[in-house]
Amino acid sequence: MLGLIQDRPLLISSLLDFAATYHGEVEIVSRSIEGPIHRYTYRDAQRRSKQLAQALQRLGVKPGDRIATLAWNGYRHFECYYGVSGIGAVLHTINPRLFAEQIVYIANHAEDSYIFTDLTFVPLLEQMAPELKSAKGYVILTDRKHMPGTSLPNVICYEELIAPESGEMEWPRLDERTASSLCYTSGTTGNPKGVLYAHRSTVLHSFATCMQDVLGISSRDTILPVVPMFHANAWGIVYGAPMCGAKLVFPGRELDGQNVYELMDQEKVTMSAGVPTVWLMLLNYMKEHDLKLPYMNRTVIGGSAAPASMIATFEKQYGVTVIHAWGMTEMSPLGTTGVMKAKMADWPFEKQLEYKAKQGRAVFGVDLKISDDGGNELPRDGKAFGHLMVRGFWIASGYFKGEGGQVLDEGGWFDTGDVATLDPEGFMQITDRAKDVIKSGGEWISSIDLENLAVGHPDVAEAAVIGVAHPKWDERPLLVIVPKQGRSPTKEEILGYLDGKIAKWWMPDDVVFAKEIPHTATGKIQKVALRQQFKDYVLPTAQSAAE
Amino acid sequence: MLGLIQDRPLLISSLLDFAATYHGEVEIVSRSIEGPIHRYTYRDAQRRSKQLAQALQRLGVKPGDRIATLAWNGYRHFECYYGVSGIGAVLHTINPRLFAEQIVYIANHAEDSYIFTDLTFVPLLEQMAPELKSAKGYVILTDRKHMPGTSLPNVICYEELIAPESGEMEWPRLDERTASSLCYTSGTTGNPKGVLYAHRSTVLHSFATCMQDVLGISSRDTILPVVPMFHANAWGIVYGAPMCGAKLVFPGRELDGQNVYELMDQEKVTMSAGVPTVWLMLLNYMKEHDLKLPYMNRTVIGGSAAPASMIATFEKQYGVTVIHAWGMTEMSPLGTTGVMKAKMADWPFEKQLEYKAKQGRAVFGVDLKISDDGGNELPRDGKAFGHLMVRGFWIASGYFKGEGGQVLDEGGWFDTGDVATLDPEGFMQITDRAKDVIKSGGEWISSIDLENLAVGHPDVAEAAVIGVAHPKWDERPLLVIVPKQGRSPTKEEILGYLDGKIAKWWMPDDVVFAKEIPHTATGKIQKVALRQQFKDYVLPTAQSAAE
Repeated sequence: MLGLIQDRPLLISSLLDFAATYHGEVEIVSRSIEGPIHRYTYRDAQRRSKQLAQALQRLGVKPGDRIATLAWNGYRHFECYYGVSGIGAVLHTINPRLFAEQIVYIANHAEDSYIFTDLTFVPLLEQMAPELKSAKGYVILTDRKHMPGTSLPNVICYEELIAPESGEMEWPRLDERTASSLCYTSGTTGNPKGVLYAHRSTVLHSFATCMQDVLGISSRDTILPVVPMFHANAWGIVYGAPMCGAKLVFPGRELDGQNVYELMDQEKVTMSAGVPTVWLMLLNYMKEHDLKLPYMNRTVIGGSAAPASMIATFEKQYGVTVIHAWGMTEMSPLGTTGVMKAKMADWPFEKQLEYKAKQGRAVFGVDLKISDDGGNELPRDGKAFGHLMVRGFWIASGYFKGEGGQVLDEGGWFDTGDVATLDPEGFMQITDRAKDVIKSGGEWISSIDLENLAVGHPDVAEAAVIGVAHPKWDERPLLVIVPKQGRSPTKEEILGYLDGKIAKWWMPDDVVFAKEIPHTATGKIQKVALRQQFKDYVLPTAQSAAE
Repeated sequence: MLGLIQDRPLLISSLLDFAATYHGEVEIVSRSIEGPIHRYTYRDAQRRSKQLAQALQRLGVKPGDRIATLAWNGYRHFECYYGVSGIGAVLHTINPRLFAEQIVYIANHAEDSYIFTDLTFVPLLEQMAPELKSAKGYVILTDRKHMPGTSLPNVICYEELIAPESGEMEWPRLDERTASSLCYTSGTTGNPKGVLYAHRSTVLHSFATCMQDVLGISSRDTILPVVPMFHANAWGIVYGAPMCGAKLVFPGRELDGQNVYELMDQEKVTMSAGVPTVWLMLLNYMKEHDLKLPYMNRTVIGGSAAPASMIATFEKQYGVTVIHAWGMTEMSPLGTTGVMKAKMADWPFEKQLEYKAKQGRAVFGVDLKISDDGGNELPRDGKAFGHLMVRGFWIASGYFKGEGGQVLDEGGWFDTGDVATLDPEGFMQITDRAKDVIKSGGEWISSIDLENLAVGHPDVAEAAVIGVAHPKWDERPLLVIVPKQGRSPTKEEILGYLDGKIAKWWMPDDVVFAKEIPHTATGKIQKVALRQQFKDYVLPTAQSAAE
């Protein structure tokens, strides 16, 4: 027997309609690419998004067509979010920081029909245009006055595109499972793969962003998403803010400490979200100029782990609560947030910080578990670590065009590729990437734990741990050390430092010293390259075991 | 093109599973019917709800079967919510305060197969049992020790029913549109009609209860729902609390000021919800004993309009923010909440109070409009008033077994039966019941507005306004006055008092004085009876118009 409830689909267009109807006067403030600060309201945004929708239909865009954007956080990009998805087309947000060949691959793989771009990326696109096979035209997100001279074919000025339209239309009533947007993940190996969000999953994820235990977005917030809109929809803020009529402040192109601070101060921002690198710039700028954040009450830190010291600085020095969050593009992206539980409120700050520095606890709508190589669930005791598996209402079931094949197991779980612990409070902590874990005699050793310990030695600048082949144990840990300038620690000193801090069988079998360790563009240790470098390395213990 | 997102149904069982997994140690505290305070955790509640589910299956309960409860707010009732709905059966919560013949009608109409009852209602059920045709058995919500001697046939002790079961089971994966629960509305005319909620609508509604702009339920809350679980699922709290792991405090049977206060104080309750009558008892008790509410930060007032003076007392005297809420059983029930917007935070309290005394603004998921008799939408200017129409994700599409026929208009709107204004801030204010509005020459006059003004006269104890037939204007207002003890105001004095406060054409055509006005059981003026009483009344203006 079915319930007797109105059958209404969960649609992205309803988020903007709600904001325009009940919070029509609330502002969206943007630092424009052209220069000045731009201000308008949700009511304006709705009208212009509808004008865009009408213009796309005039161009012949059909439901399911992919429309790409290369754009910073700003109001015209916001209009693309609603104008494109609202009519059943698919908004494909491209990360403009990718290598040119990756962008070309992605745009061709997605078969993007129109590409909307900020002025910033026109030169980049001019180089790529001959290879962009599906593109029917390029829409520059600016007005006539600022239109650049360009070699791009079929160039359209955004303001001229939408100007003839009335904005008077009703959004179509789509199937709520309709694809709404597309975001590619740039894996460390292989080609980028597309995650295809749906209207339903996006609206459900938006509800989560408004929960007190997640981001707690409300009509009383002014939110500055530093996290780009091309990073999993600015972690959902682009949808969560209109769902409750929060004021939005878009920072545009410049994300340095000064620009971000000035916007926060002038617009009385109450909440923000970004990666640790951005916060480092802001914190340095504020320290240098002796500034405070009187209006901010919380900020989200995600993308990579927030250092405990950064969390402490925000909370103790600036009175800004940190919401340490974890997720993935494949997860829309929110999976966990480190909002304290009731009983933790009375804990001493140092104990709270232990939990705040973890990746957080599950958001309702996402289920987590850890399991061993055989798929057996491991205990939630804060000690056992295993493959972090997720399932839920806004988690990918596969990649666009079937890339990567079947990605869910029989129970419907998605393997995050991370290795993590789950503690009795439900807090999750990532201990490693699964491919970096060292598997010694069937047991796992966390490379990250060993690295974090080794850098505590006063002579060590950087440390990396990889697994190296071993005839008896399959793999054993090799510790690669970059000493500090002018220091030359010995193997014995380093291992002696670790002794007593780890289980005996975790002790690295050898230590090598190097001038540098290979890094990715975003500053992470490139374990793949390091493993390649040491692929023929023979551990001293391997020799004795083989004898 | 459809998105590539995991296909997972929105199920009520997932709410309890989430609480048990991530907030397993959080308490549910109940003042039991047997006497003592009972404490256990979400983990216990999950196990016992599963034991109940297994026991129901053992009894032969099938998906779609209706299982009734006559019960106060308590942990065993909570288990029924999850154990019954979790297996696809339908939880039918009966209001035990209805007249016996209404309960019999409802239970027979619903074809309830088992009736779960608190000890309190055993005598009531004994009287009704011969007429309860579909009931296969009666489950008393207690243990063996407290089982009463009873003439009820097929009596089962709840604790004995669930004891043999292991609680080890996985909830079935139901279609999310599956009916989950049933709640009858007792209309002022005709038989009660059943609203049949679905798993999907309930989970979506639960998300709303956790939004900052709605009830803002979080894991840091301790919630005491005074509103009964048989009133639209305690306004959603029974589901919203486990969705984020909030501690629950169930008050059981006694809802007087002392009992409610003691629980709030002992359990450090942060949030509550109830009707104005309950809060009046609490406020009186606290005033009498000079008590404070140091832990409470907000309370929901709904069911009927919260008087501005009550809101002011809670906020100014006790530091408890009032969330003035409006909804209907047909709306799951939340429609609007009066949470202040950002810009209102700086307003003087008196101006805030004007808005707090309205019924609030739309919750995302519910859309509101007002329209005239011809179905034309009226402006949202705070002045025009019209039929309040609603549609949304958790609003009824019809009544159980088709009672009442087609209830949605062509646009999918449900007519609430209320007449309201919508102001530019989106705040809604109910001005009348549609059937009580006076229709004078095609224009509407609010009976409630006139009544509220008339009681401002120093000699007036109570006032009621009804429409009386008029040959020229169809209807004109008649004002019925109950004077204060020892006072005898004249018609001229009363009309003189209204003069200048209302539009000329709103002026009642006559005033009659009465010793009393008929009331419903819940204290509302019984307009139907009043209209009956004055159905042949001839207005002085009618005579002259007819001449």
